Amino acid sequence: MSDTPTFKQIQKAYLKIREKVHRTAVIKSQKVNERAGGELFFKCENFQKVGAFKFRGATHAVGELSKEKAQNGVATHSSGNHAQAVALAAKQRGIPAHIVMPENAPKVKVNAVRDYGANITFCESTQQARESTLEAVIEKTGATFIHPYDNSHIIMGQGSAAIELLEDQPGLDFILAPVGGGGLISGTAIAASGFSPDTKIIGVEPEVANDAYLSFKTGERHPVQSTDTVADGLRTSLSELTFSCIQKHVDDIVTVSEQEIIDAMRFIWERMKIIIEPSSAVPVAAVFNGKIRINNQKVGIIISGGNMDLDTLPWQ
Amino acid sequence: MSDTPTFKQIQKAYLKIREKVHRTAVIKSQKVNERAGGELFFKCENFQKVGAFKFRGATHAVGELSKEKAQNGVATHSSGNHAQAVALAAKQRGIPAHIVMPENAPKVKVNAVRDYGANITFCESTQQARESTLEAVIEKTGATFIHPYDNSHIIMGQGSAAIELLEDQPGLDFILAPVGGGGLISGTAIAASGFSPDTKIIGVEPEVANDAYLSFKTGERHPVQSTDTVADGLRTSLSELTFSCIQKHVDDIVTVSEQEIIDAMRFIWERMKIIIEPSSAVPVAAVFNGKIRINNQKVGIIISGGNMDLDTLPWQ
Repeated sequence: MSDTPTFKQIQKAYLKIREKVHRTAVIKSQKVNERAGGELFFKCENFQKVGAFKFRGATHAVGELSKEKAQNGVATHSSGNHAQAVALAAKQRGIPAHIVMPENAPKVKVNAVRDYGANITFCESTQQARESTLEAVIEKTGATFIHPYDNSHIIMGQGSAAIELLEDQPGLDFILAPVGGGGLISGTAIAASGFSPDTKIIGVEPEVANDAYLSFKTGERHPVQSTDTVADGLRTSLSELTFSCIQKHVDDIVTVSEQEIIDAMRFIWERMKIIIEPSSAVPVAAVFNGKIRINNQKVGIIISGGNMDLDTLPWQ
Repeated sequence: MSDTPTFKQIQKAYLKIREKVHRTAVIKSQKVNERAGGELFFKCENFQKVGAFKFRGATHAVGELSKEKAQNGVATHSSGNHAQAVALAAKQRGIPAHIVMPENAPKVKVNAVRDYGANITFCESTQQARESTLEAVIEKTGATFIHPYDNSHIIMGQGSAAIELLEDQPGLDFILAPVGGGGLISGTAIAASGFSPDTKIIGVEPEVANDAYLSFKTGERHPVQSTDTVADGLRTSLSELTFSCIQKHVDDIVTVSEQEIIDAMRFIWERMKIIIEPSSAVPVAAVFNGKIRINNQKVGIIISGGNMDLDTLPWQ
């Protein structure tokens, strides 16, 4: 396990990656505020390169490799945003990326990874097959594994979104972020702890994948039991590293139902005219459904991404 | 018929409405530029109040009524964005709005108009029924009819989007806008004629509703024959007034197919993560399919709106 990152490390990471990532917009909507009963500020990582905050962490982690390590490239297994993020970050550094993807991964995601010039190895769609295939790829290539969240450099990169949000909108009473493996909420919480210590940091999870909630409340790490949530980015379990960050720096974790997620997502599409993926609707749903008492205060929300299959919308 | 508006009138209109409308973002995307072979700047009227540029014209036209006329309110018939725009503009001025809507209008649009406090009268879904019902409403209430485009005050208001676009992005080689009744393209062209006379103004229409194209090419006004286009905002014909503006100030009109519209719309949703309605995809489709030779130049596109039924997407 790597060490828990510090606020200083996140600041340094931000200075290293700021020219390589988009400084995404922070936007708000009167109609959303009326429904929420507070002032919401959306940090739009759906407008980030590859369409998700994951590019921040990947850019930082790939950038931190020594020249010697870097020349053998990087590797990861993912069917989602992290795969694209690592592929593009490697392309931008000019090194190979090896991505293990389940053979049933959506074609649009496979094509995106391929467009970034990555080498793709397909495997069966089980955790075990992914891991053993990745091991074989690393054995063969000497590439460095870039874990999607159990990696302190990744967490530092993800924290840069909160730095930008707090620069653009100082004095937030809350910052909310979705919790999957915990990389985003960890980076967010550490960034805020140094930059805006009075801001409360709340993680939000789907009820049906509430491993972080259970871990936080019991003080003992629980693996995720079900992965049957519409928020496909949040089906992973915390690692020791992210759990430790959360215990130190996160104020609370709350959960929302599947229907609350879908309703919130549709409301944002209809009223704000932006495409957010289901994972991004999770913290919005918490505010809309009174899971957090915001009392007309200022709430920053990290909109994690906007990648989804437009052929299968969850309300259809 | 009202007189063709002048550039000065559009400037004045803008100063009157600027505090009441959103100054919408101008955004761009590397992936869109790669596909287009030029530098595209999207003026995002999908982020405007009521989700469409129509609020600019309605705000101006409602604002120009004398106190005496205003007290009897305003009226219009529309199943689309103009109805919401007039309803909200009237609400903001504190006067009644009477909206005639076809009985088969989408519930979401009826609810939106009702939420703005307008009085709704339903009628059969024919042009004749709409007009006779509107006449009866006006007879009864003394309200002033606000036509969606055959009204010089409306055209002046619509032109304010191009003023903002050219302020944010001077030196555009082209500005493209969709053409329905012609209010948007007229205001855009007159605004650019004074503000940036070297900018070429191109209107874009669906092939299957190409009345403006035929009128422009023949010099004689043609009514629209078919209304069977996915771009539901563009099913109307030019009026004498808008045709006259177009003849004076628009450089060309080109057309795109239904499939080109749908493909362009999906590309923008997927890559830019913003929701644009089919009418807004019409000028994008023209650039993507080489209908205009943009030769790596700078192209402003007025994104007309983002209102659509998320239950029935055109690629499904």
